[in-house]
Amino acid sequence: MLLYDSGVSGNCYKVRLLFAHLGIGYERREVDVVDRSNRAQLLGAINPALRIPTLILDDGRALAESGAILFYFADGTEYLPDDRFERAQVLQWLFFEQYSHEPYIAVARFWRHAGIEVPDSDREAKRRGGLAALQAMEGHLTGREFLLGERYTIADIALFAYTHVAPEGGFELEPYPAIRTWLGRVAAQPGHVPITA
Amino acid sequence: MLLYDSGVSGNCYKVRLLFAHLGIGYERREVDVVDRSNRAQLLGAINPALRIPTLILDDGRALAESGAILFYFADGTEYLPDDRFERAQVLQWLFFEQYSHEPYIAVARFWRHAGIEVPDSDREAKRRGGLAALQAMEGHLTGREFLLGERYTIADIALFAYTHVAPEGGFELEPYPAIRTWLGRVAAQPGHVPITA
Repeated sequence: MLLYDSGVSGNCYKVRLLFAHLGIGYERREVDVVDRSNRAQLLGAINPALRIPTLILDDGRALAESGAILFYFADGTEYLPDDRFERAQVLQWLFFEQYSHEPYIAVARFWRHAGIEVPDSDREAKRRGGLAALQAMEGHLTGREFLLGERYTIADIALFAYTHVAPEGGFELEPYPAIRTWLGRVAAQPGHVPITA
Repeated sequence: MLLYDSGVSGNCYKVRLLFAHLGIGYERREVDVVDRSNRAQLLGAINPALRIPTLILDDGRALAESGAILFYFADGTEYLPDDRFERAQVLQWLFFEQYSHEPYIAVARFWRHAGIEVPDSDREAKRRGGLAALQAMEGHLTGREFLLGERYTIADIALFAYTHVAPEGGFELEPYPAIRTWLGRVAAQPGHVPITA
């Protein structure tokens, strides 16, 4: 398989982390996340959203969106429950991550990485949204081992990706003990690889 | 079941539309989408993201995020394929909608509905993102009946919700003939209900 990838992208890291757990081999093609001028040429025919990760399966079919890729490959493995309601709960967290977490915490980190200057009001809006996401996670993880309870799933993989590097976007994790304990628990899973791997 | 709902919310409409197709009965509780001051009190214990739709199942368990609710109830019905790859494609479109479509097209409509004044630069950013989403859809729908090909699925339900009211946010659909034909095809499905139902 071929993964259109970026070493700094948490969205791509989710896929790399699941593949590491599952021992799935693949090629990586690095895509520029700052200069997007070649995106349409590179991805236009395979992913209308022009986002990465985009994955080309061995049979040539393309699949995109980190949450969809995680769900597809985790299906039938220990990383996705069989129970219909638990699967829906996993999806709830995957959508939470893409709507209420990533647009704030990942984008604030991206601005710093890429040296992009934005108005204070934009930075403040990202900060408010990111703090709300972290508070939601902290409340939920208090008294739970993982997002689904006792079981490590792709919900944890999806939320770990940008949460563990949140300080790179200015979100200190000191006020969130349940998140910090959970981050350690995720990083201790067999087959874990860091975002830099 | 009890649906924390809003009559103007396209995210809630997705759930109402699927339930109409499936003949599923439920109660609706209207939630204010402008004044969110009571959100934590109302939803804090059942949905950490404090978003609607949030659904209370008959057994008291809560499920949130429109995409997760759609997937849960469509599973095993004609509105979600059984094939593992096709299910992943459905999820790809559900994530596309929440990340690349709704934050632009729905938010621009919300600003108008709620009479919220924003800087021109914000309005322009929403416009650029919304046009990119519509162009992605137009390209994909050209030559296809539905997002998954010949089959009407929850991917169409999810994208129909805010696309068919996109003009309310200033996105005219005249330049998108494939989208317009598809909108008519979706609205002609048995059991279809309008957003105002």
